[in-house]
Amino acid sequence: MLPAEIIRKKRDGRKLTKDEISFFVNGYIKGTIPDYQMSAFLMAVYFQGMDFEETTHLTEVMLHSGEIVDLSDIPGVKVDKHSTGGVGDKISLILAPIVASAGVPVPMISGRGLGHTGGTLDKLESIPGFKTNLSIIEYKKVISEIGLVMIGQTQEIAPADKKIYALRDVTATVESIPLISASIMSKKLAEGIDALVLDVKTGNGAFMREYEKAFELAQTLFTIGKNFGKKVIAFITDMNQPLGYAVGNWLEVIESVQCLRGFEVPDLMELTYTLAGAMIMLGEKARSIEDGIKIAKKVIYSGEAYEKFLQLVERQGGDVSFIENPEKYPLPKHSIEVKSMFDGYVYSIDTLEIGLVSVMLGAGRTKVDDLIDPKAGIVLKKKIGDEVQTGEPLAVFYTDKDDVIKTAKERLLKAFKINPEKPIPPKLVKTMIDLEGIKEWK
Amino acid sequence: MLPAEIIRKKRDGRKLTKDEISFFVNGYIKGTIPDYQMSAFLMAVYFQGMDFEETTHLTEVMLHSGEIVDLSDIPGVKVDKHSTGGVGDKISLILAPIVASAGVPVPMISGRGLGHTGGTLDKLESIPGFKTNLSIIEYKKVISEIGLVMIGQTQEIAPADKKIYALRDVTATVESIPLISASIMSKKLAEGIDALVLDVKTGNGAFMREYEKAFELAQTLFTIGKNFGKKVIAFITDMNQPLGYAVGNWLEVIESVQCLRGFEVPDLMELTYTLAGAMIMLGEKARSIEDGIKIAKKVIYSGEAYEKFLQLVERQGGDVSFIENPEKYPLPKHSIEVKSMFDGYVYSIDTLEIGLVSVMLGAGRTKVDDLIDPKAGIVLKKKIGDEVQTGEPLAVFYTDKDDVIKTAKERLLKAFKINPEKPIPPKLVKTMIDLEGIKEWK
Repeated sequence: MLPAEIIRKKRDGRKLTKDEISFFVNGYIKGTIPDYQMSAFLMAVYFQGMDFEETTHLTEVMLHSGEIVDLSDIPGVKVDKHSTGGVGDKISLILAPIVASAGVPVPMISGRGLGHTGGTLDKLESIPGFKTNLSIIEYKKVISEIGLVMIGQTQEIAPADKKIYALRDVTATVESIPLISASIMSKKLAEGIDALVLDVKTGNGAFMREYEKAFELAQTLFTIGKNFGKKVIAFITDMNQPLGYAVGNWLEVIESVQCLRGFEVPDLMELTYTLAGAMIMLGEKARSIEDGIKIAKKVIYSGEAYEKFLQLVERQGGDVSFIENPEKYPLPKHSIEVKSMFDGYVYSIDTLEIGLVSVMLGAGRTKVDDLIDPKAGIVLKKKIGDEVQTGEPLAVFYTDKDDVIKTAKERLLKAFKINPEKPIPPKLVKTMIDLEGIKEWK
Repeated sequence: MLPAEIIRKKRDGRKLTKDEISFFVNGYIKGTIPDYQMSAFLMAVYFQGMDFEETTHLTEVMLHSGEIVDLSDIPGVKVDKHSTGGVGDKISLILAPIVASAGVPVPMISGRGLGHTGGTLDKLESIPGFKTNLSIIEYKKVISEIGLVMIGQTQEIAPADKKIYALRDVTATVESIPLISASIMSKKLAEGIDALVLDVKTGNGAFMREYEKAFELAQTLFTIGKNFGKKVIAFITDMNQPLGYAVGNWLEVIESVQCLRGFEVPDLMELTYTLAGAMIMLGEKARSIEDGIKIAKKVIYSGEAYEKFLQLVERQGGDVSFIENPEKYPLPKHSIEVKSMFDGYVYSIDTLEIGLVSVMLGAGRTKVDDLIDPKAGIVLKKKIGDEVQTGEPLAVFYTDKDDVIKTAKERLLKAFKINPEKPIPPKLVKTMIDLEGIKEWK
């Protein structure tokens, strides 16, 4: 097989065989196919796409480029959740303890913030002492002991994805549904899971702004999971405003802890309960998603989920005293209110802009080696549909940086559209895809 | 400027500025932009194209990557011809001496055979002693002395094209009209020409099989030339059968010499005279193409063109005795007839296949460092529209290789379609593009 002929075949829109995909990707990992042929191939895939079968083959080759964790000696159906990334999405921190409390083991390998979106790892690491860089052996130990574990990508998991992603990033080939899907699923399938709940975001804060694209991604991820014999449920959910109120690492930990302690933030918990219900059902601890939701609420009200979270923090080296007494945490230098200039209702929120401003404040990275300020971020005071009066705060932001205050204030103010009429807030959980088909969520 | 952003812009179908193209291509030549970003960029151009303005900018950057020969101290309007490549296309060997004999200086930098097509350099080098690797200084000396010169690509001319072409070849990004056009024109404009006649081939032996693609290429080449202030005429001509009868390097030299001596091969000379008429007119030695054609015929009949060819061969180190006595040339080991199995008329000839078989016989390369056998090739005995009887030869082929005879025979036989009805042969010169517009050729 000639690499240039495989590129040409995809370029001309023809379907690649499993052997061709395997030859090309394995050749790239071994170094017999150079970067410049891979990048031309990726651009051809960007334009011509891949069908479900090709994408499944690509996922398989990437999955087998590294270690596949074997959790079969741990009893129970192991279930994870994956979100395609949003702003203020701290759901994993609340969800994993809930599902683990319900008796379903949750092995979770998460990512860092990417672009304007936050990452679970950065949030966990804002807890003093919390370690996310466990080895695969420690990872298996923690989940077998406490029923959940939350770590970062290791060298052993899908190294092909790491190498290909680095190349995509510098060749404008990130935004391709088959490439995104194979990247996500090769890592998730390596975790040792039996089932997976997918949260595919759509809206002005999501990578897939348009619903149609999000739907295509959800369907692709669902199909790959199914092709690998996993139980999968995919949800398409709204990202036209941040989830909850807090955006920024420590701020989101505080909000998560509040929810775990029963002070529920409505939209955040609506989505958390939905995902938890699905995970508990897939984990065979409930007959239906509705039953799963009931169980999830029970473990919140009983305090079991909060206890499970404390257990996780302690087991992974975190200082629990900061969770129990958040006032111990160092304060940011600046805390600035952004006040409305009009009377009316919040009509829309530019969620991408909220995410970008939080990065600017110090909550995210613009370069790989940037340091994150865990204290930095934004707390919204109003969300879509809320009434607001002139002079009332729309948001408060926190930062140690002196030189970003003016810009942050202006950009945040502009991110809120105020209208005289009360809008209908966007529907949070839009669609569910499972083995029975595609359903509009009630 | 970020390279990935320029790739993304082209990927998304947006028009690149001159600065962006210059930044990207110059960065690639300097090595600050790596191969893998260039190949992703080339694939994005393959899918999204470039308009005339972008293609002109690309040509300009590639042109200025090397030396631009200055022929301004040589009197007269310097005119060259470029063909997009065909089978049996030995026209340069006859055309350049004709045009030079008419008093128009012809500075010609040619290429080698590519794929199934032959190259002028390989044909010239089949003449014992003929040197094509002159330096730029020698090149200028020869043209100022005898009014024509025929050499190969030098290191000094458009090095960006050399580097980019090598990458295109292994990343399936050759077949792109803007990339092909910038490659051709950056080299032609570096020769020091004032005017250019383009022979864009279409048909089953051309790189652009479809007329529409050939037309698009002709228009692009014409427009770039015009944008650089050159006088250009582009012809679209038929390549549904080899030009003349001979295919193979020394065989084509013999056929060219016959034509130069007045034994005219009809289709070959029809096209040669048309291109010569246009060149002589652009060279300001005739008022019209028709007048130019008259002059061209005159210098053939008078023997001046033949004398000019002998002068060229001698001046570039070739042994003229082989031109004067071709029977001195070594004979190939095998000379095999391919005989018709039917009565009828030649309906079509698979010209690509004729070219590929001639490569197999030894007349071309399958790898860059393959040696060419100058004696190898094919002489057609029948062309489209010719009557043929069972057992009559359709072609004779020549080779030193024992192991290709059976395959060559079978493939050549299949390349000729014989039909009971006499077909209308394809029109040779189809279209002309000049400053006045697009005309169907009479």
